[in-house]
Amino acid sequence: MGLMKDWLVRFVPVFRWLPAYQRSSLQGDLTAGIVVLFITVPQVIAYAFLAGLPPESGLYAALAALCLYGLFGSSRTLAVGPSAIVAMMTLEVASDFARPGTDAYTLVCLQLALVTGVVLLLLRLVNFGNVTSFLSHAVVTGFISAAAVLIISNQLPAILGLSSATDTRIFGVISHLFDGGQYNLVAIIVALLALGLLAFCRFRLEPLLRRMGTAEWLAAALSRSAPMFAVAIAVIATALADLGRHFALPLVGDIPTALPSFGLGPVSFTVVQDLLPSALLIAMVIFMESTSIGTAMAAKRREKIDPDQELVGLGAANVGASLFGGFPVAGSFARSIVNLSAGASTQLASWVTAGLVLITLVAFAPLFYYLPKAVLSAIIVISAMQLIDPAAIRKIFSFNTADAVVFAFTFVLVMVLGVEAGVLIGILISFILLIRSSSRPHIAVVGRVGDTEHFRNVRRHQVRTSPKLLAIRIDESLYFVNTRYIESFLFREIARKPELRHVLLICSATNFIDTSGLEMLEGMMDSLAEAGVTLHLAEVKGPVMDRLEQTAFYRAMKGKVFFTTDDAFLELAEI
Amino acid sequence: MGLMKDWLVRFVPVFRWLPAYQRSSLQGDLTAGIVVLFITVPQVIAYAFLAGLPPESGLYAALAALCLYGLFGSSRTLAVGPSAIVAMMTLEVASDFARPGTDAYTLVCLQLALVTGVVLLLLRLVNFGNVTSFLSHAVVTGFISAAAVLIISNQLPAILGLSSATDTRIFGVISHLFDGGQYNLVAIIVALLALGLLAFCRFRLEPLLRRMGTAEWLAAALSRSAPMFAVAIAVIATALADLGRHFALPLVGDIPTALPSFGLGPVSFTVVQDLLPSALLIAMVIFMESTSIGTAMAAKRREKIDPDQELVGLGAANVGASLFGGFPVAGSFARSIVNLSAGASTQLASWVTAGLVLITLVAFAPLFYYLPKAVLSAIIVISAMQLIDPAAIRKIFSFNTADAVVFAFTFVLVMVLGVEAGVLIGILISFILLIRSSSRPHIAVVGRVGDTEHFRNVRRHQVRTSPKLLAIRIDESLYFVNTRYIESFLFREIARKPELRHVLLICSATNFIDTSGLEMLEGMMDSLAEAGVTLHLAEVKGPVMDRLEQTAFYRAMKGKVFFTTDDAFLELAEI
Repeated sequence: MGLMKDWLVRFVPVFRWLPAYQRSSLQGDLTAGIVVLFITVPQVIAYAFLAGLPPESGLYAALAALCLYGLFGSSRTLAVGPSAIVAMMTLEVASDFARPGTDAYTLVCLQLALVTGVVLLLLRLVNFGNVTSFLSHAVVTGFISAAAVLIISNQLPAILGLSSATDTRIFGVISHLFDGGQYNLVAIIVALLALGLLAFCRFRLEPLLRRMGTAEWLAAALSRSAPMFAVAIAVIATALADLGRHFALPLVGDIPTALPSFGLGPVSFTVVQDLLPSALLIAMVIFMESTSIGTAMAAKRREKIDPDQELVGLGAANVGASLFGGFPVAGSFARSIVNLSAGASTQLASWVTAGLVLITLVAFAPLFYYLPKAVLSAIIVISAMQLIDPAAIRKIFSFNTADAVVFAFTFVLVMVLGVEAGVLIGILISFILLIRSSSRPHIAVVGRVGDTEHFRNVRRHQVRTSPKLLAIRIDESLYFVNTRYIESFLFREIARKPELRHVLLICSATNFIDTSGLEMLEGMMDSLAEAGVTLHLAEVKGPVMDRLEQTAFYRAMKGKVFFTTDDAFLELAEI
Repeated sequence: MGLMKDWLVRFVPVFRWLPAYQRSSLQGDLTAGIVVLFITVPQVIAYAFLAGLPPESGLYAALAALCLYGLFGSSRTLAVGPSAIVAMMTLEVASDFARPGTDAYTLVCLQLALVTGVVLLLLRLVNFGNVTSFLSHAVVTGFISAAAVLIISNQLPAILGLSSATDTRIFGVISHLFDGGQYNLVAIIVALLALGLLAFCRFRLEPLLRRMGTAEWLAAALSRSAPMFAVAIAVIATALADLGRHFALPLVGDIPTALPSFGLGPVSFTVVQDLLPSALLIAMVIFMESTSIGTAMAAKRREKIDPDQELVGLGAANVGASLFGGFPVAGSFARSIVNLSAGASTQLASWVTAGLVLITLVAFAPLFYYLPKAVLSAIIVISAMQLIDPAAIRKIFSFNTADAVVFAFTFVLVMVLGVEAGVLIGILISFILLIRSSSRPHIAVVGRVGDTEHFRNVRRHQVRTSPKLLAIRIDESLYFVNTRYIESFLFREIARKPELRHVLLICSATNFIDTSGLEMLEGMMDSLAEAGVTLHLAEVKGPVMDRLEQTAFYRAMKGKVFFTTDDAFLELAEI
């Protein structure tokens, strides 16, 4: 029994924070829970729309995700539920199996959430939370920027009031218009008004309110609740003027006022198998997106998140979303920010939101009947625009050429080939460039700086050298991809120095040597010996030295292994 | 005209060495050319047999390769022609297209040589000679060892005197014997006698001759000409006793005493296309094998080979081998060693050998009629045995676990799946292990060694530290695969030090920072600042500093970038 309790406390975070819950946190959690509702409802309906699903799917997914992440997640303030990126990936994957809007499509999305959730839980078993990250910053930024552009262009048909049957790709929409296709002027006006209101609230309202002396949390909550204002205004205006009937404005329509049905539904093994590769990628994106939001939140509160526990929390949330009739979920940046700034300090706030989502479902869902789809698209467009981070892109382009190449390829390939192929090729390119760069390491011929014990590159600093001694610092480990390059560099330098007696390899940046590197050292020692030159080493690191000491190369070495470059210069060059 | 001449001198080595030819070299080149013939003829006939081709194919390939490499190759002493490894790869590839022994099969081998040659020439255009080596020592050793075992087991049917129709795989041969299948006792005796003679000459004769005072080159030449003695003895004995007729001993049979016909023959585009991936791998193996032999030869003569020019020389040799009716060719270790030790100093020696091969073809080919195939197999077995290098394998296992894993996988996979799949998976595994190892870099917390300016790992050395300062040396570049690992290490160490005021990252082994690494530094600086700790850097390398100076991170840094760790300890910890 005690063992069981220890296990629960260790692996189910709610057993840690709930028994230690402090009354003083209650007010903040309640306020946050209520405030977050106002941004959650319109967002999750919009993201369900983006994913090609009926509005209630978004509410179901949010409900399940908030409840289950609250039990198993390690972040105190992360708000989990449908997210724009994951909704777009869901659309991309599920459309290959069924046509959006059909029951078969909804079922595929359910199964995708299930498989994604199970993958996340399996990744926990291999401690993936602390494992190598395969996604570089450049791949992630390229992928998210391209996904944002795709999301925005996907909304064009709805903003133009076209029927959902139209080709949603941007060229399809443009050619539809040029072919004299229909568009709905009222839909466009509604969308533009909604975009204007959302953009104003998002970018101008918060500073304005704060200048007027509004509390920080309230200013943040009000400005981020803009989707709810837009929804409320649009619903009232559409209902009063009956825009749906008079102007054929596409509306959300009926939402069943029922509790979600609970259960797996018919799971097809072949579909699950076919979904697996996509689910793996979606799981990685969910994990990465959520932990990066979670880490940022935790740092602000001097807390820590546990990446492995996050896999459990997010896995449970996705399995739950599947069982309740939703689709894949992740941490939401906008909702987490509002949650934190409105005073949440535990996941109790998420449960408050979940409870209110449930009430919305059973009591207020009919109100959304009059909501124009154009408003949902406006909400999606404003959210997606915030995914594009020009500062991050500028940083990539100014800091690192390889990363710029990876960013550009990933961006273009995600746009052209879709998220999966784009991201996978982006990852591949980042590894190829990585290997390429370490195959041509930086190598410096060094000399003594004045009379100090410091040694620097002869090309960058005024240093003292000797014709008898060639001292070379290789800024890389010695292994198969670079042995040939290093060897030719050395032989070129050696050929320039007729009086040479000693070659000193400074290994301060050599973190390991593989067998190819050892072969190179042996070959070089022999070749140098035939030319009457001795090979020495200096500043060999502990772990590398442990290995070298056991080799025939080390035993055959005529030269020395110096502790410092200083010792070597004193003995070999007398400078 | 002058331009043309410059171009020729630059890109066709014969225009450099032939005009500068010194009479003093003539005797050595002539002797070497003649001596090498005696090892070339039996070897190339044996390797043609190994490749599933008629004996004359080996002679044609050697003739063309010697002539053309002599014109275009950059090594002075490399002997090019059929080699055991490449013959085995040829058999493996070409058997997928036609049955060995048929005319169609010979045609496929011709086309394989053509495509391989063209690939080598194309690799020259992308300067592949100086590019990253993808084949680690472990992959190469694993591949060659497994290929040697395969080559030896392939010879079992011929040694047992079985007809060539038998399954050549070792299990097929064993089950054939257990099923009471026929074997030819005379063939076995001939093979064992040949093996004994060859092994004696190869491993015992040279030291014996040298103890008897024979000149070094003659001892080497005699001991390595063993195949010719074996051939001569076997031919004479077989002819005299008419073993072929009396004991059904399989013989080489008729060799056409004709010059090779010159020309492309019918080239099928689809076959060429299907051969391309295999040709790429064969080209890389040819290049690697030949340049490693060439480099070793050149080092002994204080010469240098030019890897890019080698691509031209080997490419021309393969295209030539194709046009003359041969199969893919590479540098031969045994023949190059004999060539060098018999006194060759230019490729004139190769031309002498080529001329003698031509004479053999037109005048002496009928003599090989009585040569038992079992003797060819014995020659192949002894050559293949020398490809297995127990010392190299021991070194891999004792030096580097990752390399041992790569070796073991490559060896087993080449045996089970064949050369192509085995080598490709071996390369893949070596890259995965490489990335894995750099994703968990060695990180050391360092302190000052006594009163010196040296700083070492607190776990390995007796050093002085301060509770105010955490000085960490990361033995790796900062980039996407390891940022998460480094971050968690740092936060763990920081959590242990309540009095901490400064964190110092010593970047002496940090050869580059990518955008993910920069993001990590920014995030860490912000987190530390919130906890009242300042982040500093030390020993940042020139190229890394150049990049950092342009970033917002650098401008926002409250801490310093110290030139040396010494400066940092004096200022931050006063020790």
